[in-house]
Amino acid sequence: MARYVHGNRERTYPLTVPTRPAQRELDEFLTRAVSNVSVLGDLRALLASGERQLRIKQGFDPTSANLHLGHAISLRKLRKLSQWGHEVVLIVGDWTTQIGDPTDKDLSRPLRSRDEVMQNAQTYLDQFHLIVPRENTRVVLQDEWYGTFGLRDVIQLTARFTAQQILAREEFRKRLEKKTAIPIKDLIYPLLQAYDSVAIEADVEFGGTDQLFNILTGRELQQQVGQPPQSVFIVELLEGLDGEKMSKSKPAQSIWLVDPPHEVYGKVMAIEDKLMSHYFEWATELPMSEVQATLRAIASRELHPRDAKRKLARTITAELHSAAAAEEAERDFDRIHKEKAAPSEVEDVREVRVDGAKEIPIVDLLVMAKLRPSRSTARQLVEGRGVKVDGSTASLDTSVPVKGEPVVQYGKRNYARIRFR
Amino acid sequence: MARYVHGNRERTYPLTVPTRPAQRELDEFLTRAVSNVSVLGDLRALLASGERQLRIKQGFDPTSANLHLGHAISLRKLRKLSQWGHEVVLIVGDWTTQIGDPTDKDLSRPLRSRDEVMQNAQTYLDQFHLIVPRENTRVVLQDEWYGTFGLRDVIQLTARFTAQQILAREEFRKRLEKKTAIPIKDLIYPLLQAYDSVAIEADVEFGGTDQLFNILTGRELQQQVGQPPQSVFIVELLEGLDGEKMSKSKPAQSIWLVDPPHEVYGKVMAIEDKLMSHYFEWATELPMSEVQATLRAIASRELHPRDAKRKLARTITAELHSAAAAEEAERDFDRIHKEKAAPSEVEDVREVRVDGAKEIPIVDLLVMAKLRPSRSTARQLVEGRGVKVDGSTASLDTSVPVKGEPVVQYGKRNYARIRFR
Repeated sequence: MARYVHGNRERTYPLTVPTRPAQRELDEFLTRAVSNVSVLGDLRALLASGERQLRIKQGFDPTSANLHLGHAISLRKLRKLSQWGHEVVLIVGDWTTQIGDPTDKDLSRPLRSRDEVMQNAQTYLDQFHLIVPRENTRVVLQDEWYGTFGLRDVIQLTARFTAQQILAREEFRKRLEKKTAIPIKDLIYPLLQAYDSVAIEADVEFGGTDQLFNILTGRELQQQVGQPPQSVFIVELLEGLDGEKMSKSKPAQSIWLVDPPHEVYGKVMAIEDKLMSHYFEWATELPMSEVQATLRAIASRELHPRDAKRKLARTITAELHSAAAAEEAERDFDRIHKEKAAPSEVEDVREVRVDGAKEIPIVDLLVMAKLRPSRSTARQLVEGRGVKVDGSTASLDTSVPVKGEPVVQYGKRNYARIRFR
Repeated sequence: MARYVHGNRERTYPLTVPTRPAQRELDEFLTRAVSNVSVLGDLRALLASGERQLRIKQGFDPTSANLHLGHAISLRKLRKLSQWGHEVVLIVGDWTTQIGDPTDKDLSRPLRSRDEVMQNAQTYLDQFHLIVPRENTRVVLQDEWYGTFGLRDVIQLTARFTAQQILAREEFRKRLEKKTAIPIKDLIYPLLQAYDSVAIEADVEFGGTDQLFNILTGRELQQQVGQPPQSVFIVELLEGLDGEKMSKSKPAQSIWLVDPPHEVYGKVMAIEDKLMSHYFEWATELPMSEVQATLRAIASRELHPRDAKRKLARTITAELHSAAAAEEAERDFDRIHKEKAAPSEVEDVREVRVDGAKEIPIVDLLVMAKLRPSRSTARQLVEGRGVKVDGSTASLDTSVPVKGEPVVQYGKRNYARIRFR
């Protein structure tokens, strides 16, 4: 493997050294929503010293366009590191996404086209910067190294790891037991993700607990080629509304960064009570002292779970949008849930131009009525059974007749009346 | 996978159609020294029809420079096909050799440099053409397609086969059981060899029984990409002097195409009696009627095994060299073995110029005395413990003092006296 240093990258050490965070601040940074992994040692020392700028690797496979509240946990960590003066390198998995990460999957994923991948990447990056500032952040495509990766590079890389090592990871062991096909490309996936660390010379890699295997593989590869091994920073995976890991593949069970305030609020109100401690601690920026006081108050029954959840919903909505939006969302929520608002009382009226059509596909209608910002988000919501027309759940095949003033319910708590022009 | 047709290759159909071999000749071609595999069907019809020129794939990994009598079995088949008007494509595994064929191996092989590989290829090709005429033969390097094989090609190729499929082959199952490391590169090896068939659009692939898995993988890949699947032609693997498969890794147990007549003769005389039927049938060009008559005569004790073996040794030596050389080799063999010629009676005297050196490394000595044609063959012989100096077995470290007239025994039956000048 000859190419470790890639083209136009230069490792820059700023004249001003990074911040030395206060002990207490660093403690919270390294523990809150952080999985209990043992390879943090170096990282604490490196961050505490403030001696040099660290290069933080955060990879992502743009398999879908949107980020959810679970992602916000690491993004806030990255924001902090960026504010402390470290360099965040966001690696767009324009190559690995074509393969499909076998992590946490029963089945291999189909190959994707690069065009599809790159389309998703753009909205993803926009959403990333909703939380992480552009300053101190560098976005790189894997194409910078994989665009010219030849067979020799693949051979040398695949000579460094054994089939046994890779097949030992849990997902593969399950697939072997169930006799589910494991295409050889799936064994190569972790190696490519590992090589990313070598290519950018990462000091730290970020990821959810499900990425631990891939990240440790990166650490091992760096050692094999003579680079200092990256530290590992593993954050917890937030649960979705169904109590399972929040996931791109279950849009209706996830809270999206681009969800409107009503929906964020309503979805938080819909989580199971037992998830509140994770949500308070991991998914808000409330001071830990307040988080702990709140959780204690719930445990001692001083605080009713419903009121705790209202506080949580307000906080999360305010953090993703604004305090004003959170207040309005709470009022709307109360109006609908406490006052049992009926669709007949819907105040939100949307005008849609029909130009002589007899009916309109549901996805088009959602976009034309500006209930969803894009066809893809509209499709996602319909697929998640999150849209009703006059009380009937819509599917992707649904077309709405152009007559009367149908009421569209989108998401659990949003209603709009459609007027055709 | 976009590139199936490579650069300057054009499939040429000669104006004259290939020969239509006589039924009897074809029968012998398809059975003598041919393993009993079931995918021959198409091949018989294609060869019998003489309708079009077939493209015959013979791959080789130049892991060592020399060919042995076992190789001659397929080379003679290829010669016949070439004479019948078909096209022999000899693929130099300049890429796969770098990986190392895991076939029949307990351990993964070290990566080799391309330079080393290409050096071996040249002598190999020269020896190939000792048997197969250059006419109707095309030599291609894998570099023609793998030189520009990118990560995308690797991903698409490795998406077509599962880890389970490849690990199911016997060598890998054994390695899994013994917990011997299987680098992922080893799983990719068969896929690369398979892709060779796609790249040249092979009609038939040739190989020993140990290559069946690789060759069937080629057949499958061709089907997957929409090419007519190649026929499979599997020849038997001849045993060496130790009764095990003749092999590059056991030089002293193998009969090399470049062995001098004495050595060919002597080595054949050293094979176990029970191997004679394989040797007569597979490794000679005697008519099958004569082979069968000879084997019957041995079985009925009309022919003493020693006399049968003398006939075999004469035949093989004559086929690799000449009838005259075979007769001389037989006389020398008799002189040494029947008359118990002692080293003191060695007639073969070689003069070596020393230019003031005090001692000469054994490998240099063998080449300077013209006992071996090259340093690599000399080294091979020494490594196989096939060289003695005044009765002591030499190793690669041996240096011979420049004094007296040492007698060098090289191979089991050859002696030369060295005179220094």
